[in-house]
Amino acid sequence: MKEHVWGMELDRGGEVSLSRQIFVGVREAVLAGRLAPGEALPSTRLLAGQLGVSRNTVCDAYDMLLAEGFLVSRQGAPTRVAEGLAAQDPAGSRYAATPGLPPVPAASPSYPPVVHDFQTGRPDLRVFPWGLWSRMVKEAGENLPPSARGYGEAQGYAPLRSEIAAWLFRSRGMRVEETDIFITAGATQALHLLAVLLPRREEDLFALESPSHPAAFAIAANQGFSPLWLPVDRHGVLIEPLNDQNVSAVYVTPSHQFPLGGILPAPRRAALIRMAEAQGFYIIEDDYDSEYRYTGAPISPLYTLDQGAGRVIYVGSFSKTMFPALRLGFAIVPPALQKAWRTRRTYLDVQSPVLEQAGLALFLQTRSWDKHIRRMRRLYGQKRQALLEAISQHFAGAAVPWGDAAGLHLVLQFPGQTFGEEFIRGSRQDGIRINPVSVYCPGQGEHADKLLLGYGHLNAREIQNGVAALASFMTGY
Amino acid sequence: MKEHVWGMELDRGGEVSLSRQIFVGVREAVLAGRLAPGEALPSTRLLAGQLGVSRNTVCDAYDMLLAEGFLVSRQGAPTRVAEGLAAQDPAGSRYAATPGLPPVPAASPSYPPVVHDFQTGRPDLRVFPWGLWSRMVKEAGENLPPSARGYGEAQGYAPLRSEIAAWLFRSRGMRVEETDIFITAGATQALHLLAVLLPRREEDLFALESPSHPAAFAIAANQGFSPLWLPVDRHGVLIEPLNDQNVSAVYVTPSHQFPLGGILPAPRRAALIRMAEAQGFYIIEDDYDSEYRYTGAPISPLYTLDQGAGRVIYVGSFSKTMFPALRLGFAIVPPALQKAWRTRRTYLDVQSPVLEQAGLALFLQTRSWDKHIRRMRRLYGQKRQALLEAISQHFAGAAVPWGDAAGLHLVLQFPGQTFGEEFIRGSRQDGIRINPVSVYCPGQGEHADKLLLGYGHLNAREIQNGVAALASFMTGY
Repeated sequence: MKEHVWGMELDRGGEVSLSRQIFVGVREAVLAGRLAPGEALPSTRLLAGQLGVSRNTVCDAYDMLLAEGFLVSRQGAPTRVAEGLAAQDPAGSRYAATPGLPPVPAASPSYPPVVHDFQTGRPDLRVFPWGLWSRMVKEAGENLPPSARGYGEAQGYAPLRSEIAAWLFRSRGMRVEETDIFITAGATQALHLLAVLLPRREEDLFALESPSHPAAFAIAANQGFSPLWLPVDRHGVLIEPLNDQNVSAVYVTPSHQFPLGGILPAPRRAALIRMAEAQGFYIIEDDYDSEYRYTGAPISPLYTLDQGAGRVIYVGSFSKTMFPALRLGFAIVPPALQKAWRTRRTYLDVQSPVLEQAGLALFLQTRSWDKHIRRMRRLYGQKRQALLEAISQHFAGAAVPWGDAAGLHLVLQFPGQTFGEEFIRGSRQDGIRINPVSVYCPGQGEHADKLLLGYGHLNAREIQNGVAALASFMTGY
Repeated sequence: MKEHVWGMELDRGGEVSLSRQIFVGVREAVLAGRLAPGEALPSTRLLAGQLGVSRNTVCDAYDMLLAEGFLVSRQGAPTRVAEGLAAQDPAGSRYAATPGLPPVPAASPSYPPVVHDFQTGRPDLRVFPWGLWSRMVKEAGENLPPSARGYGEAQGYAPLRSEIAAWLFRSRGMRVEETDIFITAGATQALHLLAVLLPRREEDLFALESPSHPAAFAIAANQGFSPLWLPVDRHGVLIEPLNDQNVSAVYVTPSHQFPLGGILPAPRRAALIRMAEAQGFYIIEDDYDSEYRYTGAPISPLYTLDQGAGRVIYVGSFSKTMFPALRLGFAIVPPALQKAWRTRRTYLDVQSPVLEQAGLALFLQTRSWDKHIRRMRRLYGQKRQALLEAISQHFAGAAVPWGDAAGLHLVLQFPGQTFGEEFIRGSRQDGIRINPVSVYCPGQGEHADKLLLGYGHLNAREIQNGVAALASFMTGY
């Protein structure tokens, strides 16, 4: 069982040498995209131990992979997977639909490897306490009664709902009944369910921030909604266009507008809620980035300002604070929508898996999550500081940061500049992966002078090198 | 961490005695439905160990719970949760949508506890090798590279797809490329995705077996389809009504028709495929019960008869062979539909959680699954034998079994009898939970003389006692 590394199964009695088998196994994993471009491979010593083979065998396999260009190696750095090799279209990661994960322009085999990666929406997966998490999943699983292995509540595992309610109270002062909390497979599923079940008249629009993540629009459009676009300034969404419009719901990211990064000021929050109550629409509050705030006083979620009017549907996700492949999130659903939610979820995928729900409940109950968030907030704060310093060093007064008070990315405005397709391709040729804000805008030419810099997944050195490379590219641009 | 039993958190320094806290904790779990009616509680010794309290403390708590009627106890049997106490509507389990899980008539507080439970679609959760599974999930998780914690392929974790392809070959001789296998959150999600993305003209119908599980119709109707009902005899679906009809897809359960239990004969399979090719519709083959076959020669899945014409979409589920709360299944998707599938899945819930996919891949790779299925087939075969013997003993020539060659349930026909609402209520008053086939029929009065007996979750004594109780009730009926 030790041999289950990247799906490799070594045949020890066979005719093919073990190093050749490892070569083929890694190559297949690279071509299938299971090993991501740029991903660091384990040391030869570690892999040899995992596979139960000699270190020389692994060295031979790595040498073959380096010779054929599947891996790249630089002195003093770990051996990494080369770029542009995946044979399969990793559509899932390209178009993944949670806010924070951007669409990526189609890869071209002619591009060199990505060296400096400013993609957004990527938490630092390397520092997650996987061993602790793994033990808790095991322990929680062993404490489940056999009946929990059968069909459970579509609303979600009750102890997890109860732990989320407790955490909302201790971290934000939100008083929420566990009976109003509905576990989801993430924010994407919450948005899909709402687009399906929200009450609507035929002429009703679905209001979205512009710019916003394209998945939100796609999900609403899949249910036949036309969009009402709301402009965004550096503080967040502007709600005037909602006046006298027939809208079913407004989807907003008030804690850290995606992608511009504004934190919606309290007066605008109150005005939005008054408008929702007066006009009878729902507010979908996606609180995806609220754990990571570095400056400024905390502002209450829209949900707490709603005073029980039931107009705000709060959507939370564990993708950024735990890890995306966990696929767990939750929504606080007004009583009027709960029956429809249960029915729709049942006919969608019945329920979320019980094992991860039980593990997460234990992770919350033991405060391991609180501790992890505190640690990551410190860490991301240091990364942010490193990024701001590098920006100041390389771009002096030429660039203005936006939206850096929270989250895992910031926006860099270069007044007078225009970033389009040509910029994306040119920087990519220089080994830099970076998106202009304009790719998130429904209209042409909006926010054309702004770049998005995701930094959550980078360390300080990667940040410094990346900004230096960007500055160098822009000098010639 | 030891205290996380049913969400209980004991306050050792508080004013409330530990036994009182356990009493309250269990009571809340019962009222919230987290402890299911009839569920056996752990022994006082075991619970005391789990909670780190003295056995007397637990005995005191159990005594209070018995006194207030939350638990019931019979000599020599474990203490169980009393019936009819859950305060919350367990809608999720009532309307869960995978074939095999029936709708349950609304519970009435006036009913006595269920003693004899013939619900269908319930595997025996008590004998699942949870410890082994738990270790494999942990080991597989620890071997995942950090990048696997991020967003992955919407199509599913590649090593799992590869293991499923290998298993389809060794168990059924099906040659399937892993690139055609799409991991799902279960058969329900597969059916939902297909109802969304299948090509259709405006007038197209969605063909369903009659009787069938109501969830299948609900999922198709949610996408605006009108049904074309296909009658079912004791061998399975009759396809003549499809002639010259405009249908987008036909949803069938050929390996064990739900609920009547027929195994579709090969000539009907071939005719259905010819019709699909001639008329250009898709066949959705739900192979939910195919692992458990007790008599007769195996028949090839429709998928293998399709000869690469791409008209059959094969849907498999791990709910019955592993456990329902795992939420994993798969579909074999024709190339023409793969791109749409990836996009729709991405905007639905992005992907399935990676941890359980990796654990299941290891469970398959190590052949633990094959071994579990072999064991369960033997076990279910013994249960089936016990049921047939009890039927023969109590109903002599009065009842005719249908569909007992496979699966976890059979049908009992009582020629001349009519089972309706009155029968359901009357038997429930006698502590028997049993459904007539008619509750699965779209029309009135169809299959009115047939009862459904789920036996997968019962042991031999429960089966014998249940049939005796049913016979006794029917004597007076």
